[in-house]
Amino acid sequence: MTARIITLTTDFGNRDSYVGQLKAAILSVDRNATIVDICHEIGSFDIHHGAFVLGTASRHFPKGTIHVGVVDPGVGSARRPLLFETARAFFVGPDNGLMTLALQGESIKGVTHLENPRYFAPRISSTFHGRDIFAPVAAHLARGVKPHAMGSKVKQWKVLPGFVPRLEPKRLIGHVIFIDKFGNALTNVSLGLWSTALAARFRSLSVGPVKINRIVKTYSQAAQGEPVAVFSSDDWLEIAAYQDHAARRWRLKVGMEVVLHLK
Amino acid sequence: MTARIITLTTDFGNRDSYVGQLKAAILSVDRNATIVDICHEIGSFDIHHGAFVLGTASRHFPKGTIHVGVVDPGVGSARRPLLFETARAFFVGPDNGLMTLALQGESIKGVTHLENPRYFAPRISSTFHGRDIFAPVAAHLARGVKPHAMGSKVKQWKVLPGFVPRLEPKRLIGHVIFIDKFGNALTNVSLGLWSTALAARFRSLSVGPVKINRIVKTYSQAAQGEPVAVFSSDDWLEIAAYQDHAARRWRLKVGMEVVLHLK
Amino acid sequence: MTARIITLTTDFGNRDSYVGQLKAAILSVDRNATIVDICHEIGSFDIHHGAFVLGTASRHFPKGTIHVGVVDPGVGSARRPLLFETARAFFVGPDNGLMTLALQGESIKGVTHLENPRYFAPRISSTFHGRDIFAPVAAHLARGVKPHAMGSKVKQWKVLPGFVPRLEPKRLIGHVIFIDKFGNALTNVSLGLWSTALAARFRSLSVGPVKINRIVKTYSQAAQGEPVAVFSSDDWLEIAAYQDHAARRWRLKVGMEVVLHLK
Repeated sequence: MTARIITLTTDFGNRDSYVGQLKAAILSVDRNATIVDICHEIGSFDIHHGAFVLGTASRHFPKGTIHVGVVDPGVGSARRPLLFETARAFFVGPDNGLMTLALQGESIKGVTHLENPRYFAPRISSTFHGRDIFAPVAAHLARGVKPHAMGSKVKQWKVLPGFVPRLEPKRLIGHVIFIDKFGNALTNVSLGLWSTALAARFRSLSVGPVKINRIVKTYSQAAQGEPVAVFSSDDWLEIAAYQDHAARRWRLKVGMEVVLHLK
Repeated sequence: MTARIITLTTDFGNRDSYVGQLKAAILSVDRNATIVDICHEIGSFDIHHGAFVLGTASRHFPKGTIHVGVVDPGVGSARRPLLFETARAFFVGPDNGLMTLALQGESIKGVTHLENPRYFAPRISSTFHGRDIFAPVAAHLARGVKPHAMGSKVKQWKVLPGFVPRLEPKRLIGHVIFIDKFGNALTNVSLGLWSTALAARFRSLSVGPVKINRIVKTYSQAAQGEPVAVFSSDDWLEIAAYQDHAARRWRLKVGMEVVLHLK
Repeated sequence: MTARIITLTTDFGNRDSYVGQLKAAILSVDRNATIVDICHEIGSFDIHHGAFVLGTASRHFPKGTIHVGVVDPGVGSARRPLLFETARAFFVGPDNGLMTLALQGESIKGVTHLENPRYFAPRISSTFHGRDIFAPVAAHLARGVKPHAMGSKVKQWKVLPGFVPRLEPKRLIGHVIFIDKFGNALTNVSLGLWSTALAARFRSLSVGPVKINRIVKTYSQAAQGEPVAVFSSDDWLEIAAYQDHAARRWRLKVGMEVVLHLK
């Protein structure tokens, strides 16, 4: 049997030993797991940032991949540790909405409240469930343990708002959900939503000081430094500047409203 | 035989090619080694930072793991390259105290001065022993070479001060040894030391402007932004602020004295 | 057959999901590839930085390693996706000079313009060829597909200037090509060039405010904080300060002229 892939998305940063401990906890249970770092530079406690990165990255992994997400401001409180199983993947982490975008549009086969200490570390700290619960659970999954052995099914879980824009008669109103390293401002307007009936009604877009009259196919269709609206490689409407840092140039920030005016 | 795990802890950062070269050197000797990054963002030449991260992370890895530590301000000088073998792991790096915390409380089976060039790179630079000595040695260990083949035994090595607090009649005096990404200030007061007789005598704690009258079990037992004393996931006494950055809030810094007043 | 090593060098940073997506794309084609991160903190669009890191790191990997480089300001424009095969390695990336230093001095067996969509992702975005072209191509190479199946041979490609200094009758004029994390200023004067006839003619070196009269073997031959000229672990002439940050101390910057005065 091929070893399973376990991915990691955390807000632990790269100066501490927490990421190393997470990997150690996985390898202590499943020596053959293939561990893949997605991101450890999620902003501290920034569940939206984590949800965006995990949501966009997880779609590209092979079927059966196990994703561990640890952005967990409520660690040690009553928030539940959960395991989500979809038709394509597993997601292990806290019940705080971190998996919202990853689960959006997916067929959910079951959600388990992780309760069985047999699949946890022998001793569980109150401040590091990533190492003591989520990592060992992921590694046991990788070794073939079934979700139903790990706890009881739940029917409700926390979902983050903010990943779906609002449609009004003459406008679609979204907002900026992420600024990437290149300064591109990604919005919550997805190509799936847009391409149905709205594209034909497009008149113009505005966000902060930026006004744009067309949506192009690629950055290089614009002059250097001009604002561009383009669907990103992950099919989000993105405000970019060809070979420039759009967010810095026009002071775009996460949370800013993006208005698409419609005919 | 299962491939060995080789971990890396360095101050090389992530903008340069040094980490890549270290991995290349390992894979050139042992193509099947499982390489795990613990941390490459140790402060430049900051042996204490390195010792803390390596010490806390290494405890969680499976038995037989080989840890390479490269924070090496004395490279090219007379400082010796060493290999430590404990009951649980191997540690390869410079003789400058970097392994102090990792070795604390461990049963040391032997320490080898790495002298046999057969297990080094064919050509040894004067400035990058990580690539030319430590990485190849780790990879040869992973392939089964025994420490005694690699050099001669030594009886003394450098130990960093600062990981053990001082006990006075009415006070335990430690200091802050690390500020983590979340702003938690970790001290050198370990649960092992504390739990024996001292816990029952606890009256109060002070560090900088912070005064605390109890040690709690979890962050969430405190109000948001209030100072909390809690034993960390690695059993260090830690000053935290629930969902806030304690170090920034109270200007806590590495080296600051922490006084625990005792009955 | 042993799994192939695929290395990654990008300007994607570590806050986004792009690196995770690249790895997902590789693992979706070749589940057994050994993926090694060289660097993801190349400056945005900084092809020279990328060329330096990839050039220095790639030399140390085992024969047959596949290197993916993605610093790609021209993505979506007419710049070609290329595959270079040398006697020792493969290089996959855009035709913008990113491989210049990696190829310098190597025996090039062939260069392929990647045209066969069979080895690309099923759907190709206009902004992320790393994920949709370079990563899948690397993974197919790892599985044994031959370069000639992937496109047509080309005879010309872009080469970056700046990696070779200029020789005048009484001077060798190079420049600073990289500042590493420790503040060492690496120049484009290589030991290979220097050691032939020039070393015997050396009189002095100047760069910015720094004047140096000898080239030493190791940092520690100098007093703390004094300027040192030394050949780096990768055989570049480097301006360093023993246990200090040379670039900060003397305001050395990439692009600054380095003059070696000759007898």
